Amino acid sequence: MTDDDEHSSHIYLDTAASTPVADEVIAEMLPYLKERYGNPSSIHKFGRETTRAINLARKRVAEMIGASSSHEITFTSGGTEANNLALKGTAMHVKSKIPEKNMIITSSIEHDAVLEPCKDLEDGGFVTMHLPVTDEGLVRPSELKNVISDNNVALVSIMYANNEVGTIQPIKELVEIAHQAGALFHTDAVQAAGKLPLNVKNLGVDMMSLSSHKINGPKGVGALYIRSNLKILPIIHGGGQEWYLRSGTENVPGIVGFGKACELANKRVGQYQEHVAGLRNYLVERVLKEIPRSRLNGLRTERIANNAHFTFFGVNGEDLIIKLDENGIAASTGSACSVKKQKQSHVLKAMGFSYEEITGSLRLSLGMHNTKDEVDRAVDILSSVIKELRELSPFESKYVAEMG
Amino acid sequence: MTDDDEHSSHIYLDTAASTPVADEVIAEMLPYLKERYGNPSSIHKFGRETTRAINLARKRVAEMIGASSSHEITFTSGGTEANNLALKGTAMHVKSKIPEKNMIITSSIEHDAVLEPCKDLEDGGFVTMHLPVTDEGLVRPSELKNVISDNNVALVSIMYANNEVGTIQPIKELVEIAHQAGALFHTDAVQAAGKLPLNVKNLGVDMMSLSSHKINGPKGVGALYIRSNLKILPIIHGGGQEWYLRSGTENVPGIVGFGKACELANKRVGQYQEHVAGLRNYLVERVLKEIPRSRLNGLRTERIANNAHFTFFGVNGEDLIIKLDENGIAASTGSACSVKKQKQSHVLKAMGFSYEEITGSLRLSLGMHNTKDEVDRAVDILSSVIKELRELSPFESKYVAEMG
Repeated sequence: MTDDDEHSSHIYLDTAASTPVADEVIAEMLPYLKERYGNPSSIHKFGRETTRAINLARKRVAEMIGASSSHEITFTSGGTEANNLALKGTAMHVKSKIPEKNMIITSSIEHDAVLEPCKDLEDGGFVTMHLPVTDEGLVRPSELKNVISDNNVALVSIMYANNEVGTIQPIKELVEIAHQAGALFHTDAVQAAGKLPLNVKNLGVDMMSLSSHKINGPKGVGALYIRSNLKILPIIHGGGQEWYLRSGTENVPGIVGFGKACELANKRVGQYQEHVAGLRNYLVERVLKEIPRSRLNGLRTERIANNAHFTFFGVNGEDLIIKLDENGIAASTGSACSVKKQKQSHVLKAMGFSYEEITGSLRLSLGMHNTKDEVDRAVDILSSVIKELRELSPFESKYVAEMG
Repeated sequence: MTDDDEHSSHIYLDTAASTPVADEVIAEMLPYLKERYGNPSSIHKFGRETTRAINLARKRVAEMIGASSSHEITFTSGGTEANNLALKGTAMHVKSKIPEKNMIITSSIEHDAVLEPCKDLEDGGFVTMHLPVTDEGLVRPSELKNVISDNNVALVSIMYANNEVGTIQPIKELVEIAHQAGALFHTDAVQAAGKLPLNVKNLGVDMMSLSSHKINGPKGVGALYIRSNLKILPIIHGGGQEWYLRSGTENVPGIVGFGKACELANKRVGQYQEHVAGLRNYLVERVLKEIPRSRLNGLRTERIANNAHFTFFGVNGEDLIIKLDENGIAASTGSACSVKKQKQSHVLKAMGFSYEEITGSLRLSLGMHNTKDEVDRAVDILSSVIKELRELSPFESKYVAEMG
């Protein structure tokens, strides 16, 4: 089978990397690719109709996360830019007001879109501290409490749910600790959105990053929730769009699609949890029962609905995804964004995994499009591929000796 | 007529603000909104097919501007981000290597997407110098020669064609002067692309910014050409996409559409000049002949094909575009991006225009979609609207006295 064959036979189990765009989303975008092409900054009819479309999208994003006003939503080109804006925009603003508040606390399992902006800020004189996690990928609130000082922390940034192992963090508790120490709190909710009901007010976060393409919206658009009255600085300067926080002509079709995706995600979050977690639980159960020397990683319950992350001892995860791909299954070893860097997962390292445990890891992430039949076929193929790889593996004899 | 009526009756003369997306462009984008939803960083089939699509788009962008390799193209979320990346990325890199090279030279008629990043760099210790322009909006090479010193200028950034008055700058000459002084050269070619054959090698520029939605591509995507072996620093950090210069999951449908738009623009640039400049010249001729006290601004010949910029003495340009809009014509007073700032055009000020000359300005920018019949209707309406407004204008008696 070549890459150009149709997809219908392929089973896509990589929704943590990207998701199919929902039909309803495409339908709402199309007029803004076709006849509604005005620049929202234009005051004529063509400009007004795109402005209205952005306003509606903004309202829908705000509603999904329980923001008190759509003015709290700033559109960006995606989750990465939202994280960059939150971290650098906050750090630079705080620095201009209270130079001694030069510390940022984050976790050791954040996405690179948080870790790398932190590194950049370190070059600018900030100090970053990375909280450790448990072997299930949990950031313990006590760890934050132990290190946060009274007045030198500008910002705490902890992801809502981890992109590799799916563990959900106790954000509300972490926020309280940060606020008690006078620090602002940002959460990267890119993986949590659509999987959990989100409520920025209940959580108490000051900023939250979102991405469209993880929730059946188009790529190239995201948003940063910024609590009312919180001032941060822009990182992209120009025409002053998005209340001077994000210049550049708005990606109108993308924003419209993202808004619709948020409306859908908000409406169907219960249905999502039922369908996707149902399939995921069934998949986990079958895998652990039928595939020897397999282990589920991350927390069992406090875990986003779409994520299943395994270690298959004695197997190389990269060989595994290549074999799965040949057999029509799209899966991942972990973060898609790290694959090209060819580096070992910093998330699994932080969870204390051995080289072998990391090497044998596989992430299967499901979506609304998946069926029970697909999960059955996937487990059957996975099972036989693992058997085949283990037969070729240099680790095999070791395992048979140790465990058999 | 309400805004929700169909557009067919409206005459869109604001292509400098944004353009209709070409049908061929939408057709190429759709599969990447529908079945080809993989994350390009994924190594499975879904990832490989989006990677291939990006590679093709990159090649098409490179071809449009005569780049020697598609590796010289870095995709961004638009022209504004490309300008920010060029200016800040260069400035920060030069600063890290040769701290005394702390000067940036630009012109006084750049888009805010160049001027505002320069202001931001000033806060970081850089010194910006703004070259003056002639009353036709031309940056004289002699002006650059007069101010550029031997070794303290990191970067010269001069736009290829002005977004308000359409004047084309003598980029090749300016580049030579900059290079003789050891400075890098960036040009914002957002308004020039598609209107002129572009060739980065002939021009000698080190960087060039492009935007998709000005050349019948989708909004939300652009690119920065960066000459091979030129190192600059990223402004958005994360997963390391775009050779670590621009992190974030790639906007695949947008990039695909932009690539196709570049292919089209490249192929039809002659046809564009013939059709659009033909209509524009006809429009200018009729306006100057039939509307009293009207003046064309900017250079007559060294001017992009789509731009017509007038001053109508005794008329308020904002009243004019509102009246034109009511009569089914989409026009602009100048930069769309500045309208919401409600500030006077810095371009016209730099050209030495009086308050009254600025106030009476109107930009009509044409496109491939326009017809001679539309131009005729537009001039008829413009003529009668101006007559009507002048009859109400407090300036009118003054003019009649002075000129009549």
